[in-house]
Amino acid sequence: MTILPALATEILVPVAAVIGIGFALLQWYFVSFISVSPASCSDGNRAELLEDGPDGADTILKCAEIQKAISLGANSFLFTEYKYLGAFLGVFAVIIFVFLGSVENFSTSPQPCVYNTSEECSPALITAAFTTAAFVLGVLTSVLSGYLGMKIATYANARTTLEARKGVGKAFIAAFRSGSVMGFLLAAAGLLVLYITINVFKIYYKTEWEGLFEAITGYGLGGSSVALFGRVGGGIYTKAADVGADLVGKVEKNIPEDDPRNPAVIADNVGDNVGDIAGMGSDLFGSFAESSCAALVVASISSFGTTHDFTAMCFPLLISSMGIIVCLITTLFATDFYEITEVSQIEPTLKRQLLISTALMTLGILLVCYLAVPDTFTIYNLGNTPKEVKWWHLFFCVAVGLWAGLIIGYTTEYFTSNAYSPVRDVADSCRTGAATNVIFGLALGYKSVIIPIFAIAVAIYVSFALAVFYGIAVAALGMLSTIATGLAIDAYGPISDNAGGIAEMAGMSHHIRERTDALDAAGNTTAAIGKGFAIGSAALVSLALFGAYVSRASLQSVDVLSAKVFIGLIVGAMLPYWFSAMTMKSVGKAALSMVEEVRRQFNTIPGLMDGINDPDYATCVKISTDASIKEMIPPGALVMITPLVVGILFGVETLAGLLAGALVSGVQIAISASNTGGAWDNAKKYIEAGASEHARSLGPKGSDAHKAAVIGDTVGDPLKDTSGPSLNILIKLMAVESLVFAPFFAAHGGWLFKI
Amino acid sequence: MTILPALATEILVPVAAVIGIGFALLQWYFVSFISVSPASCSDGNRAELLEDGPDGADTILKCAEIQKAISLGANSFLFTEYKYLGAFLGVFAVIIFVFLGSVENFSTSPQPCVYNTSEECSPALITAAFTTAAFVLGVLTSVLSGYLGMKIATYANARTTLEARKGVGKAFIAAFRSGSVMGFLLAAAGLLVLYITINVFKIYYKTEWEGLFEAITGYGLGGSSVALFGRVGGGIYTKAADVGADLVGKVEKNIPEDDPRNPAVIADNVGDNVGDIAGMGSDLFGSFAESSCAALVVASISSFGTTHDFTAMCFPLLISSMGIIVCLITTLFATDFYEITEVSQIEPTLKRQLLISTALMTLGILLVCYLAVPDTFTIYNLGNTPKEVKWWHLFFCVAVGLWAGLIIGYTTEYFTSNAYSPVRDVADSCRTGAATNVIFGLALGYKSVIIPIFAIAVAIYVSFALAVFYGIAVAALGMLSTIATGLAIDAYGPISDNAGGIAEMAGMSHHIRERTDALDAAGNTTAAIGKGFAIGSAALVSLALFGAYVSRASLQSVDVLSAKVFIGLIVGAMLPYWFSAMTMKSVGKAALSMVEEVRRQFNTIPGLMDGINDPDYATCVKISTDASIKEMIPPGALVMITPLVVGILFGVETLAGLLAGALVSGVQIAISASNTGGAWDNAKKYIEAGASEHARSLGPKGSDAHKAAVIGDTVGDPLKDTSGPSLNILIKLMAVESLVFAPFFAAHGGWLFKI
Repeated sequence: MTILPALATEILVPVAAVIGIGFALLQWYFVSFISVSPASCSDGNRAELLEDGPDGADTILKCAEIQKAISLGANSFLFTEYKYLGAFLGVFAVIIFVFLGSVENFSTSPQPCVYNTSEECSPALITAAFTTAAFVLGVLTSVLSGYLGMKIATYANARTTLEARKGVGKAFIAAFRSGSVMGFLLAAAGLLVLYITINVFKIYYKTEWEGLFEAITGYGLGGSSVALFGRVGGGIYTKAADVGADLVGKVEKNIPEDDPRNPAVIADNVGDNVGDIAGMGSDLFGSFAESSCAALVVASISSFGTTHDFTAMCFPLLISSMGIIVCLITTLFATDFYEITEVSQIEPTLKRQLLISTALMTLGILLVCYLAVPDTFTIYNLGNTPKEVKWWHLFFCVAVGLWAGLIIGYTTEYFTSNAYSPVRDVADSCRTGAATNVIFGLALGYKSVIIPIFAIAVAIYVSFALAVFYGIAVAALGMLSTIATGLAIDAYGPISDNAGGIAEMAGMSHHIRERTDALDAAGNTTAAIGKGFAIGSAALVSLALFGAYVSRASLQSVDVLSAKVFIGLIVGAMLPYWFSAMTMKSVGKAALSMVEEVRRQFNTIPGLMDGINDPDYATCVKISTDASIKEMIPPGALVMITPLVVGILFGVETLAGLLAGALVSGVQIAISASNTGGAWDNAKKYIEAGASEHARSLGPKGSDAHKAAVIGDTVGDPLKDTSGPSLNILIKLMAVESLVFAPFFAAHGGWLFKI
Repeated sequence: MTILPALATEILVPVAAVIGIGFALLQWYFVSFISVSPASCSDGNRAELLEDGPDGADTILKCAEIQKAISLGANSFLFTEYKYLGAFLGVFAVIIFVFLGSVENFSTSPQPCVYNTSEECSPALITAAFTTAAFVLGVLTSVLSGYLGMKIATYANARTTLEARKGVGKAFIAAFRSGSVMGFLLAAAGLLVLYITINVFKIYYKTEWEGLFEAITGYGLGGSSVALFGRVGGGIYTKAADVGADLVGKVEKNIPEDDPRNPAVIADNVGDNVGDIAGMGSDLFGSFAESSCAALVVASISSFGTTHDFTAMCFPLLISSMGIIVCLITTLFATDFYEITEVSQIEPTLKRQLLISTALMTLGILLVCYLAVPDTFTIYNLGNTPKEVKWWHLFFCVAVGLWAGLIIGYTTEYFTSNAYSPVRDVADSCRTGAATNVIFGLALGYKSVIIPIFAIAVAIYVSFALAVFYGIAVAALGMLSTIATGLAIDAYGPISDNAGGIAEMAGMSHHIRERTDALDAAGNTTAAIGKGFAIGSAALVSLALFGAYVSRASLQSVDVLSAKVFIGLIVGAMLPYWFSAMTMKSVGKAALSMVEEVRRQFNTIPGLMDGINDPDYATCVKISTDASIKEMIPPGALVMITPLVVGILFGVETLAGLLAGALVSGVQIAISASNTGGAWDNAKKYIEAGASEHARSLGPKGSDAHKAAVIGDTVGDPLKDTSGPSLNILIKLMAVESLVFAPFFAAHGGWLFKI
């Protein structure tokens, strides 16, 4: 049926994954050349580059020391987090097994299939066991993704600082290469584990693909569950430390950011690694796993699913494989084909990465579609008439997702980079104080929602019109196909942020800090772009999962005119608010205790302000750790438990409404929150950098306008790094959880309405 | 069929309306006893109450002068606003006529009816003419409502100030009576005009109720169109002035609020009257008109509609009539049965008003349902099987709306009054500066959404389960049945705010200002409660209108699984963000020009700070007027044009999705925005009042915590008085507009998908 034979697929997918992993290791090898021990600096051609004085050998030792402290803090936090997570998800694994096993009352005899009732399928109990196993695998892969990301980032931060002595170009390459390590490792490992899991499960399921891919959805659920706690816990950690450090350090004591005298400074830098790196790593891995699962589960009931065309079935995995190769080539444009020499080239280089990967990937998709998709096939979908799809229809589905992602990325850049008027207007409004800054910032965030939503709407309409929910699932995959590049430029941000922190703490000279600041300012924008991708893809993924859920729950329609659906819709639209209220309050509370501790240290440790005595960093790290572990549970539980409660008490229809409501409302808040925060941060950086006449008229640091900008930045912290990015997980996780539990809800749900 | 004969209904409704108007005039008469000319103070028993010195005869003259300036400013703004509005709505009236006339290609011969195709109905051209006439009537009534409210408020403000000399109880009664004038005048006039219109239209339509009530929907559209521009224009006006005045006066010059030296102070006080009073008056009139229209149009195709049972048909009007009588009794509890003597009694008294009116109204509803509803009747609804309804089912529908309103009101009070912990926590967070204040405030607003949404969801489910969309329409009516009381306690707020302003400007003594401040603090809470009601009822009204629209557009279902609907849903959920971005940016921009003007005056008018020379109030009034007129057009046009564009280009299904999306997303933003703003305002007042140990530890005025609180208050201004309250009109207006144009869209819409 397809040009590419099954055997070729069996080979190509793991090969691409292995190439990805190899490339990641190669990048790591390059980064490891940068030494953080002063000894090696004396040898050969490296020493001459180094200056004496503030950036000399002593400083290198200091950098290594700080790096170690950050790494230790991050390690200890992640271990604690994963311990609690392990307990929670262990219980959840049992729930999955028991609930799904109960669908056919724990019967061990074969049952008629759901879609093709004339055939016999494995009993629900077996699928429950496989789903649970897939869930555990998803959890482990996600944990690994986050942990490895953190390891790389804490390995790279001091190295970036040291490279900054040689110029901004070298520092950029160090940070970007390290980001790539994470990007490729995650994309490739996710693909490989998924591929192996499918092949192992196939040993039992053989040609019963319906059950096989139903079980595989557990993988997506596992990945997203870890991502949720990672994002929320890490987000609270990083922002409690950041807000606490800024409120006392910058506002009260008038000392610069990342000043070593600030007791919360190590906690702040640890936070970047556990929140922005480990949290985001798990998040995007979750998106990848879920969009693959959604596509696979919808495909399993298509015509090539029923005729068992292995290559066509593996189309989602082939797209991801192609993505790894394309991103590999793209990366070379940033690190090898071309080297930046000036600060002003950083943002264009990162933007070009997006454009190059999208353009190359478009060709890649065309190739994969041509080779791996049958000329014509049929998508079966409950409630809709079967849909005839041609191979090039599928090309447009994937491509529209890919390009919608680019539009979202560029829009985000326009609204959060200080090269354009929106952020400059926000900076300008600081003239009249913090209040107008906050008003303008909120308005900017709201406005930045418009174009992304239109892009998503077009992607949904086109892909749905061409291939129903399978179209939406592969559109999501298309948006995520350049995930390795996306992650690389996203991880680059916190690494640069940390590098700046280390430069400041090690007392390096002013121009080093200026270089890392420039890297960091671009990092704010790329972080916002990364979040834009995460949210846009989350919207498509959730919709695809929603379609799969509805199909699995045997719903013929989700009619807004039914009160059952409508109350789900309006309550679902409320959930992101509830969730945001919890996470923002948590950050606020944790920041308050951090403020008290920092103030206490300034008041009680003699000579701290004069730099004679060191502050007690460990206590601040502990406050952040304890607060985030404690505070991540309620919002996490809200997201994990709501679909279960609604499904059991109100049934599949209300749950469908709830998912749709949470999706359409959550997307908006997530986009506006992360763009508002990014804009405030860069408005502040714009004033601090003073690179234009206008910027200088607002500055310098410490001016009234700058103080107003700092307030905006602080407000934006929990918006952009805690509640905003967690919301896309809320949307996805509730959808994938509903899909996993759909058989249970369909069999036993809706108690309340039955009474 | 019903116990109450048609003749009795014909008499009772206008009698209740006339009683309401009479009661309003009586209250006005009482207020008019308070003299604002010093001459009358010398006569009889009034003079002895007055003190000499700062609160003596000179002050009275000054109060009268300020009152006149405020009244003139408000008058001139409303005239300008209505002029532009007239032009815009004139064009819109033509659009209505042409579009609706074109449904049957301007044919003048009778056509088969929509619901009962075996009968003949009036041609679309005639209904287009009647709809246009109803639209114009709705516009005029709404303009009148806003204008009268403003007149009363500017009549009452100085009188409240002067009564404050005699004690807080007298001042409260003056403010509350004036609020009642507005409440009863609006409720009664709205009812009377609607009643007369129905009877006049009936002369032509006779028993063809389907066409009659279709034409009547124009009344709702007219009312809401004015409300939209009133809320947006008035909201921008009042907040530009308020924010501008605060930023320079309080923050830069350290002079108190409402200080006569501040050039923007008159504009600020004018703003309260055109935004909070005239805007809100039009808004709630619009809700009343729309919920009545929604109920009537659904009822016209019920079994009592087809059997022409006049009393049953007029059930919505009878509920409103009963509401007027109940509110009349309720008002006496605040003004006659009982007089407050202490500041601490203000809030409980206002809260009691809500409880009393709700309790009495429950009995009233029971009576109306028993007398005016047939024992059993049938609701026909496209896409659903016909529904048998018993009279007491309808009682539960109305009652659940009424009590949901009370729950929303009490929740709002809990989250915005400084008597409870949420606002106190926000005040406490000011210790660490403006950033934590803003974070805690936003979190509070998000959290305050939870209970109202559950209340609305329960109301929707119960009323829908009992009587489908008719149930939802009468639930909305139930929530609005105590509108006279709601408006009275709502209008009381800005009147007290103005009274405080006048006391300050006239240089009255400190304890007068303390009394008006106490009135005003309670007013912030009641304003938030009023907005809660407005939003809650808007949600129900919109859903009822949505049901009527879907029915009229002959849609069998609105299936989220269809891409056409889903893209509508996600874009609809985005509209409130787009709209908020526009309105907040407008306030920000207008406030910036106000700031510049105020600064200019302080810098160029010699002796202004020392009180030797008067500022130029008129220029500030002009800035606010010009800015609000200019800036109200784009957001207004967005709301008015979107349904037309979507209906014409994408058709009825996408429009249905759009309405549902805007509804479920807009409700959340509206509630959170108005509660966040209310909470910040009262957190600031809590610190200023210093009524507890905790509050004193944060104050006094001018402390760092207080400054942080002022920033929060300023950010909250556009949220709670511009974008928040306009959003509920956005939801309702788009729904009623879609309903009015439904025949046109069904006939000619959806061009893009046809290609």
